[in-house]
Amino acid sequence: MDVQKRFELVKRNTAEIVTEEELKDVLKKKKPPVAYLGTAITGRPHIGYFAWVLKMADLMNAGFKVKILLADLHGALDNCPWDILDKRFKYYKKIIPLMFKALDVDLSKLEFVKGSDYELSKDYCFDILKMSSLASVRDCKKAASQVVKNVEGEGAKLSGLIYPIMQTLDEEYLGVDMQVGATDQRKIFMFARENHPKMNRKPRIGLMVPMIPGLVGKKMSSSDAGSKIDLLDSPEVVEKKVKNAECVAGNPDNGLMAFLKYVIMTLKLDDKQNFIIERDEKYGGNLEYKTYGEVEKDFISKKLHPLDLKNAVAKEINDLLSLIQKNKKELEKLSREAY
Amino acid sequence: MDVQKRFELVKRNTAEIVTEEELKDVLKKKKPPVAYLGTAITGRPHIGYFAWVLKMADLMNAGFKVKILLADLHGALDNCPWDILDKRFKYYKKIIPLMFKALDVDLSKLEFVKGSDYELSKDYCFDILKMSSLASVRDCKKAASQVVKNVEGEGAKLSGLIYPIMQTLDEEYLGVDMQVGATDQRKIFMFARENHPKMNRKPRIGLMVPMIPGLVGKKMSSSDAGSKIDLLDSPEVVEKKVKNAECVAGNPDNGLMAFLKYVIMTLKLDDKQNFIIERDEKYGGNLEYKTYGEVEKDFISKKLHPLDLKNAVAKEINDLLSLIQKNKKELEKLSREAY
Repeated sequence: MDVQKRFELVKRNTAEIVTEEELKDVLKKKKPPVAYLGTAITGRPHIGYFAWVLKMADLMNAGFKVKILLADLHGALDNCPWDILDKRFKYYKKIIPLMFKALDVDLSKLEFVKGSDYELSKDYCFDILKMSSLASVRDCKKAASQVVKNVEGEGAKLSGLIYPIMQTLDEEYLGVDMQVGATDQRKIFMFARENHPKMNRKPRIGLMVPMIPGLVGKKMSSSDAGSKIDLLDSPEVVEKKVKNAECVAGNPDNGLMAFLKYVIMTLKLDDKQNFIIERDEKYGGNLEYKTYGEVEKDFISKKLHPLDLKNAVAKEINDLLSLIQKNKKELEKLSREAY
Repeated sequence: MDVQKRFELVKRNTAEIVTEEELKDVLKKKKPPVAYLGTAITGRPHIGYFAWVLKMADLMNAGFKVKILLADLHGALDNCPWDILDKRFKYYKKIIPLMFKALDVDLSKLEFVKGSDYELSKDYCFDILKMSSLASVRDCKKAASQVVKNVEGEGAKLSGLIYPIMQTLDEEYLGVDMQVGATDQRKIFMFARENHPKMNRKPRIGLMVPMIPGLVGKKMSSSDAGSKIDLLDSPEVVEKKVKNAECVAGNPDNGLMAFLKYVIMTLKLDDKQNFIIERDEKYGGNLEYKTYGEVEKDFISKKLHPLDLKNAVAKEINDLLSLIQKNKKELEKLSREAY
């Protein structure tokens, strides 16, 4: 793949890249370029995670060496009780690789890293203190504000302000050229870019994937069960949640359509498969789509009814979760201990 | 020495002990009890430091095992540039023991500890993060407010809020029963007492010595050369600074009298020597005092003139600094590199 093709693959479905010029430069010069995504060990992973799992798979296909940071300490800095941290880690450690496997990613090419395995080293801790003496309270607070649960209130804990400093250091200690996250990470990415040079280090590229809205409400939240589909949800529960999802005829601005766009239709495109909506002959028969754009067009014109769309999306989600369902017994045990 | 006598020796010249009951208990049960004082490697040590040096000597005489923490990392958390930290450490490491030696303390019974020697260990760093998740930003800010230089302004650095957490952990990792500091440390001591139990540890006793006011202005500040007598000041400079010190006839509320009270007269009492003020026969001849109370009485009644007092105090200070003067060449070299 030439550099331009690799660049396009990296860029597709992203919300923002800071900066595209740096990305092009890294694609040209670094062999291989290295990227990571960190997921804090807090809430239950849900299907929204597939957006970044798919993006990391894109990066691998574009020649990146990819690392996934299972950020246990960050989980604790953001309110996960210390005594269940390792149980949550075990759950993430089992289920996140299965998400990659569900997308046919070769796991042997992927590196999973546990945060506490290197974030308590002498050098790293020295750097926490050093960067804390160079970064203002105000900037740390601003950086954390969209990621850490409580950074403004009376009871806001100091750990929330250390959070962006450690995320900055992770870029250095994982030896990456680029960090990936959803758009809520933007302020931390910018904080990192501002603070690396104070330690005589180079700023890293920040690549952001869109936030997938919740099925009900704005955000697919780990803490609101109604708003998201949990990875362990049974096919019946998935069908029920999708049926109850907000999806007004003619208006594509909802979580279901976003998931269709960023995950399902992207996978279909890569697999050269059509998205099929089964319909009774009396309602016009099956519909077939190659791209998300085509689906959206029919949905806006109301040629495609929400109920038919929902049935098809639920089926696709259940296909995506089938590998996890096969491992459900073990996962449910880990889940019970972790949550 | 019985417990009551030891208690009285520990308590003399203190501003506050939190709590006296806990101190009595420790004196009774712990063999030996352990206390520490931490001095952050920031400004130039001045004669005000003798107040706590003397208190630590008292503690040793009362049966305490005493540790002095040369807190290099705390210096950096409170604005000492990282690249000169080790040079400042070297200066402190040389001059602080000489202050003890000047008071005839047996250095072999005293333990000097460098902060970074244990504060970057895995366990310690884990505890920084853990405590930061239990302590609020507000409480950290409040605790640091009288010690760290800039905790409120726009440019306030995050390090200033980590400062009280590390000071709390120092009590644990140095294995002490009591921490000693000047009264400006009160909020940090209270923070420590509140936060130890959150980590299932016992609160430590906080013993506070009074702040000795500056010769000019309220505080004997490391950063205002006019307000304090530097340990390296020559006898002539000491005489000059004392001569210029604020000392209004009849009013004992000034830095000179405080130094006389907490350091000079306490040492005289211990050595069973009188404080002698040399005066020409035509002005009434020499004055001799056993206690500070007697000096203060004569000063308030204006029987003792400020100029005569100043001459005598300058002489005492120069006696106290004579050992340091003997090591001046090496100290000045270290000082030039550190400041």
